[in-house]
Amino acid sequence: MSDLPKHVHVQEEGPREGFQIEPGPISTADKIRLIEALAETGLKHIQVCSFVSPKVVPGWADAEAVVEGFKAKPGVHYTALWFNENGLNRALAFRDKLTIGGSISLTASEAFTKKNLNRTHAENLTAMKKNATAHIAAGVAVKRLGVMAAFGCNYQGDITPAQVVSTIEDGLKIAAEVGADITDFSLADTMGWAIPPRIERTIAEVRSRWPEKRITLHLHDTRGLAVANAHAAIKMGIDRFDATVGGLGGCPFAGQKGAAGNICSEELVLLCQEMGIETGVDLDALIEVGRMAEEIVGHQLPSELIHAGSLDAFRRKAA
Amino acid sequence: MSDLPKHVHVQEEGPREGFQIEPGPISTADKIRLIEALAETGLKHIQVCSFVSPKVVPGWADAEAVVEGFKAKPGVHYTALWFNENGLNRALAFRDKLTIGGSISLTASEAFTKKNLNRTHAENLTAMKKNATAHIAAGVAVKRLGVMAAFGCNYQGDITPAQVVSTIEDGLKIAAEVGADITDFSLADTMGWAIPPRIERTIAEVRSRWPEKRITLHLHDTRGLAVANAHAAIKMGIDRFDATVGGLGGCPFAGQKGAAGNICSEELVLLCQEMGIETGVDLDALIEVGRMAEEIVGHQLPSELIHAGSLDAFRRKAA
Repeated sequence: MSDLPKHVHVQEEGPREGFQIEPGPISTADKIRLIEALAETGLKHIQVCSFVSPKVVPGWADAEAVVEGFKAKPGVHYTALWFNENGLNRALAFRDKLTIGGSISLTASEAFTKKNLNRTHAENLTAMKKNATAHIAAGVAVKRLGVMAAFGCNYQGDITPAQVVSTIEDGLKIAAEVGADITDFSLADTMGWAIPPRIERTIAEVRSRWPEKRITLHLHDTRGLAVANAHAAIKMGIDRFDATVGGLGGCPFAGQKGAAGNICSEELVLLCQEMGIETGVDLDALIEVGRMAEEIVGHQLPSELIHAGSLDAFRRKAA
Repeated sequence: MSDLPKHVHVQEEGPREGFQIEPGPISTADKIRLIEALAETGLKHIQVCSFVSPKVVPGWADAEAVVEGFKAKPGVHYTALWFNENGLNRALAFRDKLTIGGSISLTASEAFTKKNLNRTHAENLTAMKKNATAHIAAGVAVKRLGVMAAFGCNYQGDITPAQVVSTIEDGLKIAAEVGADITDFSLADTMGWAIPPRIERTIAEVRSRWPEKRITLHLHDTRGLAVANAHAAIKMGIDRFDATVGGLGGCPFAGQKGAAGNICSEELVLLCQEMGIETGVDLDALIEVGRMAEEIVGHQLPSELIHAGSLDAFRRKAA
């Protein structure tokens, strides 16, 4: 157990992941209410919106209004997501309020790149290089290298650790060419193919090649294994996870209507807390926000914990 | 990884757990349809009903009709649940069709025994002794010792491995007095308090005392950690799990309305399959039965996998 981290960083993506997929419409005021409530739980990283085309993602047509509207809490990093220069410029308008960082985002599965972006892997590399250059030109550091479908893909099947390593190599080559200093890798189980041994093998392989990089895991609970996967990673010392309150998000990929979204923030916090690992998050407060999220979207969310309540709540009653 | 079992036995309890709690009404024909479909997936142990008072559990008022009605598949063990001599006698009427076994069922939490059975632990021991005697008198072997709330309790809080060991000692004392030869322990996380390290500590403690006994885990997914708990147990060589298709069941305990039921059979099978452990179960067939269960109960079940589909199904499409 000596590899256990002392602290796990829960990077909340509920607003961004959730409101991009919920049929809604969800009011701007409700989005703001959720973001502000999340900041009161002790979470230090909250991804608040996507700056994407409202034609493609109507749920984020009000991205500007949301960012303008919420009251920022000191000490909390608010981030956003974007995919191109237009999105970057929209984000830069909120430079004072948002933490703006660039990333090189690749996919370990060429079939998924084709399906999702209508590009070959080579075309995607070119696009990402252009994108990274634009960020650096705007004075935005590019420190993060993301690999989607890092554990398997609905369109390509299994993804080996060697494929992840090779994708990272491609990304680092771009980074070197544009002068970006990558400090962080993000490995995403975009379509829920991970199982604990696959997590262990891939992390071990990536770490042995690049021991100095920090790794974030972005897990989806598509097949119910997200918490088991997080647990396996935590035991290897992984201390950064994207997660969504209540399990907001859903999986937009073909053949998976109704499938679960990201790992639930509160279930990850519960796991850490019961293992004696700090998260800085008030679990009961986060559970309340999960219930608020359910009320806002108007249907039951995948989180089991928001329905059951924390162990500490029962411990207090039992005492 | 040398402790990994070669084969994991998935003991399906979906019909019994599910139909006792679903508001329904669910027709006898639908119950039979689910049981027969489960038997076609390769599952070898199916708990089909409860012989309990229809006043307490109206969902099982038709237990006899269900057992009479389903067509038994050779090689499959069909079991039932009961709590007293009256239930035993109802089960014995189906001696040819059901696998009838007795058990001594205790609870590691006295507060839960009080709440659930309105008995002290001592009174429960007396009742269990009487019950075991009745089984043996009827020619039914009592081989199983169950411990409920083995990992924590909503009414008492944390349960230590020492409390589980002491509960088992009490059960073995009764067994010795009535001449029962206990071969199996069943540890139940009745209210969803387990986390992987707690599973590991309790199993290690119980095993070090009674290395020759087989251990079954009965896990609830009350707080989303059931698969992570199963994974921790599998890594210790535990090879028997109760589970319910689709996650049928729900948690009937106070303050947990809407909380999840048992670990989903299909998510457990997926985990095993992807780890190279046999279960004898056709996962795609089981997922289909999960969808049938959802249709029968008329609402979404907790299983993520029945909504997402198996990895093999996507592998076949990708190939």
